[in-house]
Amino acid sequence: MSDGTTAFVPGHVTGFFTVRTHDDPAKAGSRGAGIALSDGVAVDVVQAPAGTERVTLNGDTVDVAAVDFVLDELGVTARVAAETELPLGAGFGVSGALALGTALAASVELDRPHTENELVDTAHRADVEANTGLGDVVGQAHGGLAVRLAPGAPPHGSMDRVLSTSRVEYVTFGERSTESVLAGDTGPIDRAGERALERLLDDPTGETFVAASRQFAEDAGLLTDRLESVLEDVRETGRAASMAMLGETAFAIGDGLSSAGYDTEVCEIDRTGARVSIPFD
Amino acid sequence: MSDGTTAFVPGHVTGFFTVRTHDDPAKAGSRGAGIALSDGVAVDVVQAPAGTERVTLNGDTVDVAAVDFVLDELGVTARVAAETELPLGAGFGVSGALALGTALAASVELDRPHTENELVDTAHRADVEANTGLGDVVGQAHGGLAVRLAPGAPPHGSMDRVLSTSRVEYVTFGERSTESVLAGDTGPIDRAGERALERLLDDPTGETFVAASRQFAEDAGLLTDRLESVLEDVRETGRAASMAMLGETAFAIGDGLSSAGYDTEVCEIDRTGARVSIPFD
Repeated sequence: MSDGTTAFVPGHVTGFFTVRTHDDPAKAGSRGAGIALSDGVAVDVVQAPAGTERVTLNGDTVDVAAVDFVLDELGVTARVAAETELPLGAGFGVSGALALGTALAASVELDRPHTENELVDTAHRADVEANTGLGDVVGQAHGGLAVRLAPGAPPHGSMDRVLSTSRVEYVTFGERSTESVLAGDTGPIDRAGERALERLLDDPTGETFVAASRQFAEDAGLLTDRLESVLEDVRETGRAASMAMLGETAFAIGDGLSSAGYDTEVCEIDRTGARVSIPFD
Repeated sequence: MSDGTTAFVPGHVTGFFTVRTHDDPAKAGSRGAGIALSDGVAVDVVQAPAGTERVTLNGDTVDVAAVDFVLDELGVTARVAAETELPLGAGFGVSGALALGTALAASVELDRPHTENELVDTAHRADVEANTGLGDVVGQAHGGLAVRLAPGAPPHGSMDRVLSTSRVEYVTFGERSTESVLAGDTGPIDRAGERALERLLDDPTGETFVAASRQFAEDAGLLTDRLESVLEDVRETGRAASMAMLGETAFAIGDGLSSAGYDTEVCEIDRTGARVSIPFD
């Protein structure tokens, strides 16, 4: 790839969240917290005549509504080629990453100058409209262990960050639909999410983030039997893990999952956030 | 060094700014834009009994009011050892970097958990109260070609970012006092700064940032004869450079200064912003 401009967007695992629906997708979103990962999505964009647009992910042609939304909004036609080592449909925000990476790379490659906030706004609205995410894009843009204090894209949304050790482990057991969970009654999610956020802001550490996420998964009724058993295995080692929202995925900061004998992927917290490299000629 | 916890804070060169004074130092600050640099300040903090505190910069004991403010606010006593390759008093925000690096490293090393916004707020107020900076700390925390849309520390201040090539050159000819400039009539500065910000937001690119900064330096009456002559040399090569606010320093994005024959330092735009590394035991 890379005959055009390439952006990198970290994967993003939400630990806990609340849901805010709003007619204006820029104001819709979620409060909560998640971690941006050094495992992410590289998105390459190159101009293409109308009628020859194509979006590929790891070489396969895919139909991603959020990417189409972004290209429409920027008023460009392009080929988008994305590569990722992240599992799909497993709670890593890949759709948000595709939208945000497309926005950043297309802005540069097709000479449509926008500030980063404007591009994050576009990608956030794309993800919300496509029903694929509520907070991944802003977390991916911010980087780190990112806290969503107020929902939505900039300037509506408001972000903070928790300082943490950077080793992350994760293991995925299958796919799960974000849309179906959000279509149900979100009352229990919202109440559990608010409690988790309060707990984290009261003691802003990586350990408390994982513990509050674990409690949230249980209180919100989102824990599957399989994940419950995994998290219990980790707890027996004296460590902690929780569940990626929303996917059949367990994650830990540190070595909780490997200590419990799981064969995990290992990466780092990505502190930088989504970025696009612009070569100096 | 590094017997404690070490934070890295990028240097920060402001290109243009406006001044906002306020009784509450968290709300005082500036609008404007600047670049965070990969040349920066490493700040190591280790606990020390009261009476044995010491702040060193490149091995020399120094008295930095903003650092004392931060340690007081966190309620800790510590030794702070900072190292930097940046010139002092030349417009690189070293005092802001010392304050922010101390806040980040002390929070971790002395187990005083705070969110990043809280630590940025503390360091910003420290820099403002010490009369050493109005916008360096928030630019250093944000990283990149950072735009200060609204003045002050979070949650009052508001930031954005311009996408840019990352090569930066700079050359310093001497020291200059920020405090003396800000003590004068800031009317011309504010008017020129608002014009520059409007121009940049209208065309958010690295080239426009440097051009708007160049115009600002002239309109605000801050350009010395020496810097005017340097910037003119660069202009004759068909490239652009401007002046670091506030220092006897010229900077360019790209190779404007070296093309004009100047012997420059070369670094990158630091997109990540200030960070502290927390080892995983």
